Amino acid sequence: MSVNTSFSIQSIESIHLAFKNTPSYWESYRANEGDRQTDRFEFKQGWQTVYARYIETPLVKVTLSDGTIGWGEANSGIGPEIVCVIINDMLAQMINGQEFESPAALWNFQYDTQRGRGYSSGYWLDALAAIDIAVWDAIGKREQSPVAALLAPNPRTRFDVYLSGIRRSTLQERSDHVNSWIDTGLKGAKIFLTGDVSKGIDELDGLIEGSPDMEQWMVDTLWMCSPESAELGKTEYGKRNVRFFECPLQPEDLAGHQILVNKPGAPIALGEHFRTRYQMELWVQQPRGLDVYQPDIGRTGFSDYMVQMQIASQYGIATTPHMGSGVSVFQAATLQCAAVASDEYLQEFQGGLSDRLDKASDTGWKYADGGFVLPDRPGIGVEINESLLEPFIVRK
Amino acid sequence: MSVNTSFSIQSIESIHLAFKNTPSYWESYRANEGDRQTDRFEFKQGWQTVYARYIETPLVKVTLSDGTIGWGEANSGIGPEIVCVIINDMLAQMINGQEFESPAALWNFQYDTQRGRGYSSGYWLDALAAIDIAVWDAIGKREQSPVAALLAPNPRTRFDVYLSGIRRSTLQERSDHVNSWIDTGLKGAKIFLTGDVSKGIDELDGLIEGSPDMEQWMVDTLWMCSPESAELGKTEYGKRNVRFFECPLQPEDLAGHQILVNKPGAPIALGEHFRTRYQMELWVQQPRGLDVYQPDIGRTGFSDYMVQMQIASQYGIATTPHMGSGVSVFQAATLQCAAVASDEYLQEFQGGLSDRLDKASDTGWKYADGGFVLPDRPGIGVEINESLLEPFIVRK
Repeated sequence: MSVNTSFSIQSIESIHLAFKNTPSYWESYRANEGDRQTDRFEFKQGWQTVYARYIETPLVKVTLSDGTIGWGEANSGIGPEIVCVIINDMLAQMINGQEFESPAALWNFQYDTQRGRGYSSGYWLDALAAIDIAVWDAIGKREQSPVAALLAPNPRTRFDVYLSGIRRSTLQERSDHVNSWIDTGLKGAKIFLTGDVSKGIDELDGLIEGSPDMEQWMVDTLWMCSPESAELGKTEYGKRNVRFFECPLQPEDLAGHQILVNKPGAPIALGEHFRTRYQMELWVQQPRGLDVYQPDIGRTGFSDYMVQMQIASQYGIATTPHMGSGVSVFQAATLQCAAVASDEYLQEFQGGLSDRLDKASDTGWKYADGGFVLPDRPGIGVEINESLLEPFIVRK
Repeated sequence: MSVNTSFSIQSIESIHLAFKNTPSYWESYRANEGDRQTDRFEFKQGWQTVYARYIETPLVKVTLSDGTIGWGEANSGIGPEIVCVIINDMLAQMINGQEFESPAALWNFQYDTQRGRGYSSGYWLDALAAIDIAVWDAIGKREQSPVAALLAPNPRTRFDVYLSGIRRSTLQERSDHVNSWIDTGLKGAKIFLTGDVSKGIDELDGLIEGSPDMEQWMVDTLWMCSPESAELGKTEYGKRNVRFFECPLQPEDLAGHQILVNKPGAPIALGEHFRTRYQMELWVQQPRGLDVYQPDIGRTGFSDYMVQMQIASQYGIATTPHMGSGVSVFQAATLQCAAVASDEYLQEFQGGLSDRLDKASDTGWKYADGGFVLPDRPGIGVEINESLLEPFIVRK
């Protein structure tokens, strides 16, 4: 495309937002005795991962040399202030005032600065993703184009989504919750289970019975299966026509996933933990370790997302963006990517979570009839009213 | 071994130290027009990596429930305050007061908390390494044993080192510098070159001529070679009996290193960028991507270092610890690991760099006669006088 993607950054700033006095990510789902809470975090029975007790996120504001403003956000709900330190106290002084021919060139420059030291995943890359999103947003605004139309010709103008997580206390409440979503036109839902497949089947069967009109179910075990329970889960969830079985084994276990992919049952989906092309390539090559690729835009940014989707596509693997915790900016960036992703799968959608910043966000992304329409707006499709961010800003 | 490695942490704190008004890592070596400096950082011609303009580092102080104190340090010279945030504002509240059967159990617990989100390298692991070192130091002090003797039976009681980097302006000054070290009994030195092999050969030949009594030369190109120049360098440096050729290609290029290893010439060494066993295993398996494994203790900690050395050993690959930038604690931890490493290679040594904290450090590690003697002291072999840290502490 002949669009101008070159730019120079006049200033960049990242702010740490926290939404205290709001429910945790898990809301009332699987609240067990034995869960452990700290000041900021919580541990849930059956899962190894730490979760935030209230939503926190890093926003990034970039101002290009021509004054155009763009917004970005990383998926860094655990310790978002680290992304702020990386951007405000480290990267800003390396990149401000430099000329870049594209956001990808900026990403590569920043990646190279710490490449030899193994800053190849984690927070450093989260910061790069947030900056990449902000710069693309600004370029879209400058060029008067939605980001999706800059990334690929003919983006989808509408796509359907699935609800990610049914975070209610009882099975009855979960079925009621799903049914109320089905009434809006929703076609799919993903449930989060542990590595205990027997309990997982009970939950899934209960939901199928309680919400018989749901078209697609997805299952995510958050990396908690053993090889044996993963194989059993793949079979059993497959028998129930689960659209995909997400994050079965530990994330480093390429060999285990390569074996699992060839077992009968539901397709295997993963990818949310990858930051870069360098991490995911071995997983999509033959013998492949996944069937469906799910990169998280708040960790990859737009630029490397496009590279990763292309690599997966070379090996015949469809890409559908992961959507984790975050607010309107992260959601908008993810949905721009959904507009250029495979139409084989429903797009993940965090109902509710991304509304935390609703008063400060004027977003063109409105859920309706089971999906989203690509907004006719430049950039990622969100305007931020900075004066309304103030109550949520965390300062040391 | 029957030694008690269980513990509970009463408190843990990380502090950001900066040694302003001291020379940068590169001192006067390769100071070219076109180098770019920012407030904290500098870029050098010919290398992609960013460097610190003055030494900064994160120290960690842990107090076990019985009151024993231990010190740790990560190799995080670029943005050490991030390690401080991770430890002080995130990990401390997750781990304080919990019982762990060993430092490895603590490392695994912390790794698992962010494992599914791709915090599998970079700062998160740097923090885990610093904590692991501090806890081992405390356990060594409690058990009245050098850490090396807790890690393995019969550690080496003395080993020789090589000087890492000859950071002087002119070839003559560099030869003089090397010769003054040879007078102390030093047996080896490593030089840092770019991907320009022709210039590299000139430099190496000049040094060999200027310092004919040097027994071993090592070459490090900081990941800057192309496949072609790496092959040429391997041949040419090999002809000059270079002990190993370090970091030739980009750090993700496993396939390229696998090919290079089989070419004639100097052995290939790398490993400083790896944090965990999960990252390095593919590189030491057949077909291997390296001949000499160089983990950095300020990134792996003691616990995973031992696992990684064992994995490398299974495949017949010798381990010799990397030593990067840092102060007395990091140096002491590295040298404890050297005491249990392969004796095939000289241990890397950063002459001068680790002396920044000399007034506040009472260290048992004293360079003499080309090497070090394992101190007859418990823990890592360093006592820190906290009152003397004050001038170097950076507070926001």
